[in-house]
Amino acid sequence: MNQTNADASAKADRDALFERVRNSFDKQGAMHTLGASLGEVAPGSVSIWMSHRAELTQQHGYLHAGMVATALDSACGYAAFTLMPADAAVLTIEFKINLIAPAKGPRFRFDGVVTKAGRTISVVDGRALQVGADGVEKLIATMTATVMTLLGRGIES
Amino acid sequence: MNQTNADASAKADRDALFERVRNSFDKQGAMHTLGASLGEVAPGSVSIWMSHRAELTQQHGYLHAGMVATALDSACGYAAFTLMPADAAVLTIEFKINLIAPAKGPRFRFDGVVTKAGRTISVVDGRALQVGADGVEKLIATMTATVMTLLGRGIES
Amino acid sequence: MNQTNADASAKADRDALFERVRNSFDKQGAMHTLGASLGEVAPGSVSIWMSHRAELTQQHGYLHAGMVATALDSACGYAAFTLMPADAAVLTIEFKINLIAPAKGPRFRFDGVVTKAGRTISVVDGRALQVGADGVEKLIATMTATVMTLLGRGIES
Amino acid sequence: MNQTNADASAKADRDALFERVRNSFDKQGAMHTLGASLGEVAPGSVSIWMSHRAELTQQHGYLHAGMVATALDSACGYAAFTLMPADAAVLTIEFKINLIAPAKGPRFRFDGVVTKAGRTISVVDGRALQVGADGVEKLIATMTATVMTLLGRGIES
Repeated sequence: MNQTNADASAKADRDALFERVRNSFDKQGAMHTLGASLGEVAPGSVSIWMSHRAELTQQHGYLHAGMVATALDSACGYAAFTLMPADAAVLTIEFKINLIAPAKGPRFRFDGVVTKAGRTISVVDGRALQVGADGVEKLIATMTATVMTLLGRGIES
Repeated sequence: MNQTNADASAKADRDALFERVRNSFDKQGAMHTLGASLGEVAPGSVSIWMSHRAELTQQHGYLHAGMVATALDSACGYAAFTLMPADAAVLTIEFKINLIAPAKGPRFRFDGVVTKAGRTISVVDGRALQVGADGVEKLIATMTATVMTLLGRGIES
Repeated sequence: MNQTNADASAKADRDALFERVRNSFDKQGAMHTLGASLGEVAPGSVSIWMSHRAELTQQHGYLHAGMVATALDSACGYAAFTLMPADAAVLTIEFKINLIAPAKGPRFRFDGVVTKAGRTISVVDGRALQVGADGVEKLIATMTATVMTLLGRGIES
Repeated sequence: MNQTNADASAKADRDALFERVRNSFDKQGAMHTLGASLGEVAPGSVSIWMSHRAELTQQHGYLHAGMVATALDSACGYAAFTLMPADAAVLTIEFKINLIAPAKGPRFRFDGVVTKAGRTISVVDGRALQVGADGVEKLIATMTATVMTLLGRGIES
């Protein structure tokens, strides 16, 4: 395979991976409510973007910690999903989040990166970044999520 | 003070506490988006109710883990808030959540109960219960949250 | 079966469960180093006892948070183990601990209680109690542990 | 100040920081029990080294998760300590650890790196690495710790 074909093949793989994640992402009513959109998708990492919205805030007008967690959990879950077999489902077992700075926005990026991809259990680390009006990024939260690969059985088992 | 007056006084205290929490709760855009309502409020514990909604789901139609976390975080934060000085603000430092069963609903109750109320740091445990159409309760998630009491300084310090 | 026989049978079951846990407990070099001993063992719950020791301290003379975690992790892991098939191995995937009060002792009890026993994943909650010289118990730490049941394959898979 | 003097001054600062951490580290009975030694100390990061020991194991002969946590907690706490005022004490509020691979050794390095240094609360991330007989490093655990700066009051407040 020459370089042009190799590049085309790699691009097709990336596109297929993006579509696989987007198909699931689009089924998440929560992502619509957040006004979130899927950013970069690569093997072992996924980014999600969203903006500050008044309907997602806590009492001081910042993004609610749970809404930060919602976007980070999806980023982490899908990051693990990119390394799973095509017929697998992904299930979050648990996560922990540290809130580091008030989430003002106006924009946010949520990055999930797989730290360990296991047959059954994967560990994924997430970072929530505020992107200021001036483009300056600031870390606002970190997450560690433990997710499970479900194969050939219902998600409720 | 006779018993009738004592009862009236205790009720007034409970009403004042409820109002204090509700004033803050009503400012949370996120609670409106969840369709959540404040349940019982007592010193050291708060309950929040909500129903399953398609706009809060993950890809399999269950409540998104992050939305479960959003309601639990508010229940835990406000549980700590009930034991803080009247002029204090409450800030979630971190939380961890374990997802135990799929969150189908149709109803959910989120209970936050203070395990340790400290001068600066409080530890609160939360439980998310699904209330089935038949009224049967089922544990769907547990949370431990670490929250901070903020006095006389901005929330961003 | 008459009552006497039923009682004898229940006692035999409890003894067998205790032996199963003790066999594994005794293989933990860490428990010897802690001077820990196995307390009550019942289906879904295990207690471990230990005393304050200078060789287990942090810089202020209290029990090191990690040593509290070591005893709690064993209590939680074995609590899950009591509900697993006889040929299963137990593996801690992750845990979170909140340190609530300085661990002075002189005695400590660590209780692990299963919150959810799953086929593959179990969630266990632990509480570390200080037992003062006057017998008064004080909560010093809480843990939530996620443990895995390993069947018919190596622990390293 | 010329370059030679600047270098000498920087080295003196590093030495003083190392001594400050080592003074506290040496008071931890737990570190002696682990056979742990202090590695690199820099502003915002600390490494600790130790070897596999039979007296620190769980039932399968690997390092007990709690012992991994003990070393990581110290590395994380001291990493935060390097950024605190000279008269401050450091207190772990909570930590979460994910166990990623069996801790066989023969050597281990535990790195704590500050993610956010706050006036009161700091967030520190830790990584436990196994260093094989062949020198190959392998990630065996990750930790996120929340630590508190204590100034001018007892650690028990």
